[in-house]
Amino acid sequence: MEGDPALRLRVFDLNCWAIRYLSKRRPERIRLIGDRLCQEGFDLVLLQEVWSERDYGDLKAKLGGCCPFSHYFRSGVIGSGLCIFSKFPILDTLLYQYSLNGYPYMLQHGDWFCGKSVGLAVIKISGIVFNVYVTHLHAEYCREKDAYLPHRVVQAWELLQFIRHTSKAADVVLLGGDLNMHPQDVGIRLLRCWTGLRDAFTETKRFEGCEDGCTLIPSNRFTVKSELQPFPLGIRIDYILYKAGSSFTVKCEELQTTTGTAPGTDIPYSDHEAVMATLHVQRTGQAAGVTPGTAVPALVEVLSEARTEVRVGLLAARRQRYSSGRMALLALLLLLLQAAAALGALAGLADGQPFPKLSFALLAFLALGVLLLATGLHLFHTIEVKMLQGTEEQMRMALGVLQERPGRS
Amino acid sequence: MEGDPALRLRVFDLNCWAIRYLSKRRPERIRLIGDRLCQEGFDLVLLQEVWSERDYGDLKAKLGGCCPFSHYFRSGVIGSGLCIFSKFPILDTLLYQYSLNGYPYMLQHGDWFCGKSVGLAVIKISGIVFNVYVTHLHAEYCREKDAYLPHRVVQAWELLQFIRHTSKAADVVLLGGDLNMHPQDVGIRLLRCWTGLRDAFTETKRFEGCEDGCTLIPSNRFTVKSELQPFPLGIRIDYILYKAGSSFTVKCEELQTTTGTAPGTDIPYSDHEAVMATLHVQRTGQAAGVTPGTAVPALVEVLSEARTEVRVGLLAARRQRYSSGRMALLALLLLLLQAAAALGALAGLADGQPFPKLSFALLAFLALGVLLLATGLHLFHTIEVKMLQGTEEQMRMALGVLQERPGRS
Repeated sequence: MEGDPALRLRVFDLNCWAIRYLSKRRPERIRLIGDRLCQEGFDLVLLQEVWSERDYGDLKAKLGGCCPFSHYFRSGVIGSGLCIFSKFPILDTLLYQYSLNGYPYMLQHGDWFCGKSVGLAVIKISGIVFNVYVTHLHAEYCREKDAYLPHRVVQAWELLQFIRHTSKAADVVLLGGDLNMHPQDVGIRLLRCWTGLRDAFTETKRFEGCEDGCTLIPSNRFTVKSELQPFPLGIRIDYILYKAGSSFTVKCEELQTTTGTAPGTDIPYSDHEAVMATLHVQRTGQAAGVTPGTAVPALVEVLSEARTEVRVGLLAARRQRYSSGRMALLALLLLLLQAAAALGALAGLADGQPFPKLSFALLAFLALGVLLLATGLHLFHTIEVKMLQGTEEQMRMALGVLQERPGRS
Repeated sequence: MEGDPALRLRVFDLNCWAIRYLSKRRPERIRLIGDRLCQEGFDLVLLQEVWSERDYGDLKAKLGGCCPFSHYFRSGVIGSGLCIFSKFPILDTLLYQYSLNGYPYMLQHGDWFCGKSVGLAVIKISGIVFNVYVTHLHAEYCREKDAYLPHRVVQAWELLQFIRHTSKAADVVLLGGDLNMHPQDVGIRLLRCWTGLRDAFTETKRFEGCEDGCTLIPSNRFTVKSELQPFPLGIRIDYILYKAGSSFTVKCEELQTTTGTAPGTDIPYSDHEAVMATLHVQRTGQAAGVTPGTAVPALVEVLSEARTEVRVGLLAARRQRYSSGRMALLALLLLLLQAAAALGALAGLADGQPFPKLSFALLAFLALGVLLLATGLHLFHTIEVKMLQGTEEQMRMALGVLQERPGRS
């Protein structure tokens, strides 16, 4: 088999920022994205934040000629926003929804409603099995005091576990998406160490695009400038990662990003820049033995760091579970006291004294409202504690297995 | 490697019916289950409906000597109820929560609150990699008019997809659990056809236990007799299924079920009977090629049947989404009308006529309650429609791939 002609694969990844009624100039941008994809003839297109099925349908119709195969991953109330277009038939798909994804009461952030997930599509190209993953993790709204860090670390852990468990028969693994993590953040180091995925930006032979490969840049008219203030060049949070199975090599020949506006227009495709990679896949002829993985001490170190973040989250979740539970109990107590007072008044114990009906009824409604709200919060934080505990335990188990293993992974 | 000594593996599976405050004689039964497991020294123990972490903790403490390795799968508000005990180290775990699991407003059934899932534990025994799955699907409350059938079929599909995608590097696949399906039901045929899993009951050389291998029997004092009336012998809904990878064979030497009471006592372990299998695993020496799978026409037939069930569910879900949406709109309209009437009264348009404050306020509260409830239902059925649609699409894709493939799977 050695000497097989190499396969060149062009991959496009973009967070499309296509929220109906909210994202600026959405229909126009979706049209521009479709035009670009048609012109360039990518082999694989991985999109995030395509929240509207109509937008997906429009893209599907437009890409019918160049990427006739596609899949839209459905989940949650609004959807996962994830979709894949491919020049080659998609043989199978699977969706894994992350167990934690922010808080329902943080309406201004809205991540909770999106059913954030990782989607897998199995695609065979020239006899080579590609496991293609597309994902979008919880956003980071404040880097200094990031309340969502434990959730994002749990998502990174679930993502890497899902990839590890589902990719064992794949010849090539590809992951594209908006990971909402800077290259040195603990979640992405965890993901890369534990899966062996390589970052197209650091591995590429040629690069063209925004400085440092940034995908959220101040010169894009749709980015929120205040959020990017500490980073004058912008930040890199959108990635194409890849890994070869034992009988293959994958190299990144070229990586490009868009640079703020769509060619020939004055608007960008999205508030994110697109990442475009040209990969070179070659069969090596024999099962070369898996490329040496990350050394055990490095795995232990990054996992311990991630576990600390999960524990910090667990402490906070326990505190919130406790205080919402206490609030619910207090509201219940108040309601019971009111019921007793009402019964007392009915029984004529306070004869002669006027009964303050209006303020009484208002207080009862207030107490009932607080009871319902606090109970809901308590249930939500109970689930949160359970999932953080479960992840912490899985991490502990993984550390145990690692520490018993001599040498390398 | 041929001639390796064969591995004998004893597997125990039981739905423990251990719901705090609700299940009869729970602490006593958990003690009896622990005693039996200690006495018999099983290699793998797969339990369902262990809802209380304290019960899990008690079992863990008791089984420390014979099954020192264990994992409790956490999910949902109440939990998944799933756990695994093993004589051999558990190397890795993963949990997949089913996307549909009944209705939150069916409080009397309660499945929705349980976060029903499939748990995977990777265990290496004598150098052989076992992927061990434990699961519990949605209950069937009325066989004639089973409103949950589409959800159970979606769960069976997600279960088989999860097993197929995660077991590719496993030497042996084992699945134990309460599938809530009779052996001829579409979901279990789908699961078996598409994964190649074999049913220990039909494959075993020796069987001892309830007639027809039933696991819910009328002579168990905890079963609901009226539900079992059409089935005088009982029903078989708890299974141990297995499959060997290409270099292995697995045979079931012996299968047993409990028969109503725990030996030496007058009470059963649970309302279900336990299933106990002795498996014989042998390395065949060479990769024998995967055992011929199910023929394509059979795969197509069972998948088409399952797809029909999903479509029936989709129609029902769409109707419910529509009617809850209409109800929410009507309630909103009523509130708006009331607001207009109140404004009119304030503006003195109906001067002289008495304004019916009490009935007005009551009506407003009623309309608000209906609005909130109907909106919640509408959102829930929107998710349901999305997930049923997603599954239907995946099934359509699988049918397409099958029909393009010549010959056998």
